[in-house]
Amino acid sequence: MNNFTYDITTIIHFGIDQLKNLADMKASGSKVLLVYGGGSIKRNGLYDDVMQILSENGLQVTELPGVEPNPRIESVRKGVELCRENELDMVLAVGGGSCIDCAKVIAAGACYDGDAWDLVLDGGKIEKALPVYTVLTLAATGSEMDRFAVISDLEKNEKWGTAADAILPVMSVLNPEYTYSVSPKQTSAGTADIMSHTLENYFNNVKGAYLQSRMCEAILKTLVHYGPIALHQPDNYEARANLMWASSLAINGMVSYGAGVGWCVHPMEHELSAFYDITHGDGLAILTPFWMDHALNAETAWKFGEYGRNVFGITGDDDMEVGRQAIECTREYFKLLNLPATLSDVGIDSTHFDIMAEKAAAGCEGSFVPLSKEDIKSIFMAAL
Amino acid sequence: MNNFTYDITTIIHFGIDQLKNLADMKASGSKVLLVYGGGSIKRNGLYDDVMQILSENGLQVTELPGVEPNPRIESVRKGVELCRENELDMVLAVGGGSCIDCAKVIAAGACYDGDAWDLVLDGGKIEKALPVYTVLTLAATGSEMDRFAVISDLEKNEKWGTAADAILPVMSVLNPEYTYSVSPKQTSAGTADIMSHTLENYFNNVKGAYLQSRMCEAILKTLVHYGPIALHQPDNYEARANLMWASSLAINGMVSYGAGVGWCVHPMEHELSAFYDITHGDGLAILTPFWMDHALNAETAWKFGEYGRNVFGITGDDDMEVGRQAIECTREYFKLLNLPATLSDVGIDSTHFDIMAEKAAAGCEGSFVPLSKEDIKSIFMAAL
Repeated sequence: MNNFTYDITTIIHFGIDQLKNLADMKASGSKVLLVYGGGSIKRNGLYDDVMQILSENGLQVTELPGVEPNPRIESVRKGVELCRENELDMVLAVGGGSCIDCAKVIAAGACYDGDAWDLVLDGGKIEKALPVYTVLTLAATGSEMDRFAVISDLEKNEKWGTAADAILPVMSVLNPEYTYSVSPKQTSAGTADIMSHTLENYFNNVKGAYLQSRMCEAILKTLVHYGPIALHQPDNYEARANLMWASSLAINGMVSYGAGVGWCVHPMEHELSAFYDITHGDGLAILTPFWMDHALNAETAWKFGEYGRNVFGITGDDDMEVGRQAIECTREYFKLLNLPATLSDVGIDSTHFDIMAEKAAAGCEGSFVPLSKEDIKSIFMAAL
Repeated sequence: MNNFTYDITTIIHFGIDQLKNLADMKASGSKVLLVYGGGSIKRNGLYDDVMQILSENGLQVTELPGVEPNPRIESVRKGVELCRENELDMVLAVGGGSCIDCAKVIAAGACYDGDAWDLVLDGGKIEKALPVYTVLTLAATGSEMDRFAVISDLEKNEKWGTAADAILPVMSVLNPEYTYSVSPKQTSAGTADIMSHTLENYFNNVKGAYLQSRMCEAILKTLVHYGPIALHQPDNYEARANLMWASSLAINGMVSYGAGVGWCVHPMEHELSAFYDITHGDGLAILTPFWMDHALNAETAWKFGEYGRNVFGITGDDDMEVGRQAIECTREYFKLLNLPATLSDVGIDSTHFDIMAEKAAAGCEGSFVPLSKEDIKSIFMAAL
């Protein structure tokens, strides 16, 4: 097990009727930037509920609506400007991961003397940030309880992740009911995202990170069990609750502390989204099994064997064979969630593979199996 | 899944060479009460290392040595007096759970205008406390990362747990190497304690607390795997590291948030320790399988079935049968750790069963299966 520092200070209010805890935002001042997306929170009443609680607690609101699914640097810049102009004290994101990611970089940008894109390219430049609060409406990215944010500049076909202590949310409200209205497509894509975060942490070769691997399996089993239920029974509280809490635990450090390796499917997917603006979870569902095909070999078979036995209950002594079956189970699982299975399914051809593979390779350093530009290109080709 | 609030602010520095982080204690002032036990930290050099770092950072130390394995209220009172007399700013525990529990109640007592025993009987009276820091030397109670403390008044045969936000440690240093010198007996007792914490959380009937159950199984599998290794290879880093991190996660809220029920084996064991001052983990190892015998029935068999299949890999469709085998596996596991199996093994007879059962029953409210005084007495009798 590697050395690590556990430091997760985000307070999570989980469950029904927890929105009232937004009253605690008063501790950070009185002027709030409210960041949200396409307006679904207006249709389902959450916007009104939030505004009422903020108003009852004397919190003044400036709004930044319309944050995109792959949040863009232009939205961040707009938010930073609003914070500066109005001398805002804090940022509240009400929405999914995109919305929260945007809010985080706004919060950092408001305290940075320069263009916010600098902070996307280099998290080390984020020294402080306005306090970030969130109300989560989509179980997916885990941004509600982590230090990461992913922002795109589509003009440059760039999509990068950044990270800093200062952008860890102070408090997040997680009410599974808020995800009842998430579409089947987004439910599946979100579940694939959680699955991918867990797998990125799970497939590591850190000696003796046993407990961490078993915790990953706990999350993976939960996704396998509840993903299809949430898809077909959108208002199943148990399913939504388990997916929602899994989204936070998959990426907040709980399963990676002591077991960290470089991620690889995410950097590869970021190139798909950067060039084609596809749904992040769709890209992950497509690439994951093809990455597994590439990663399974005599040296790594033990880990795939664990995966097959402990997550899918596959029996047998031959790690390679169990591993192969586990990859098929993974494929079948994503199919069951009606997720796309190939790049052609989402309209991607080989036009930009060369540059995409080159950029992805830079992000895959230190991953479970080393990935060169050529390796990544061959994974893209297999996934066509 | 139940509503919950996740709020675990303790910073954990885990691994080799992390003691230097004690320098951060300066944030709490300059005068430290150093609480430790029987002197093993002097023999293995840890005392000197701690003193050196404190001194290098300008921290002045007042010492409270000699804290007992079941820490007594007299030690707490002595510590409170030292804090008051010397106007100390914080408390640093270097030791196992007993030492940390003692330090926590001292920290609270120093800020309380009355006798510290009041705070043991009623955690609600703990409104504030001096900041608590810990250096852990025994994987067992999880006190390094939770809000609990257990203190005894042996004159009254009383042993009670208390809890409060204010006594959650600010920072804990967890170096698995510090547990290399823990005796086989204490290694086993500590492992039984972690096992029991996890089982107390695992055996719940909260609807839909699926992820939490899988996380409990992750910890249980880790204990089953590494307990015997640590016993026979005391300097096996992997084993010590997994047990140490399991000790924190078993009780810090991670596996109980959303899934909480009343504990029962702990309250029963506290009576054994209160009347006979036996090792806490020994008492838990004795009582757990007998409690399971009592708790397994047609209504609860599903949970025992999960336990048997997911932790011990028992196959079969009949929950009752799998459950019975799982209980035997639990017994065998404790036997493998050379833990006592009956009350007679630790010199306890039926003399005080009546009063012990009555007091334990009061602490078992809301547990997985309801336990009356008579139920508990029959469990004690079976365990004779």
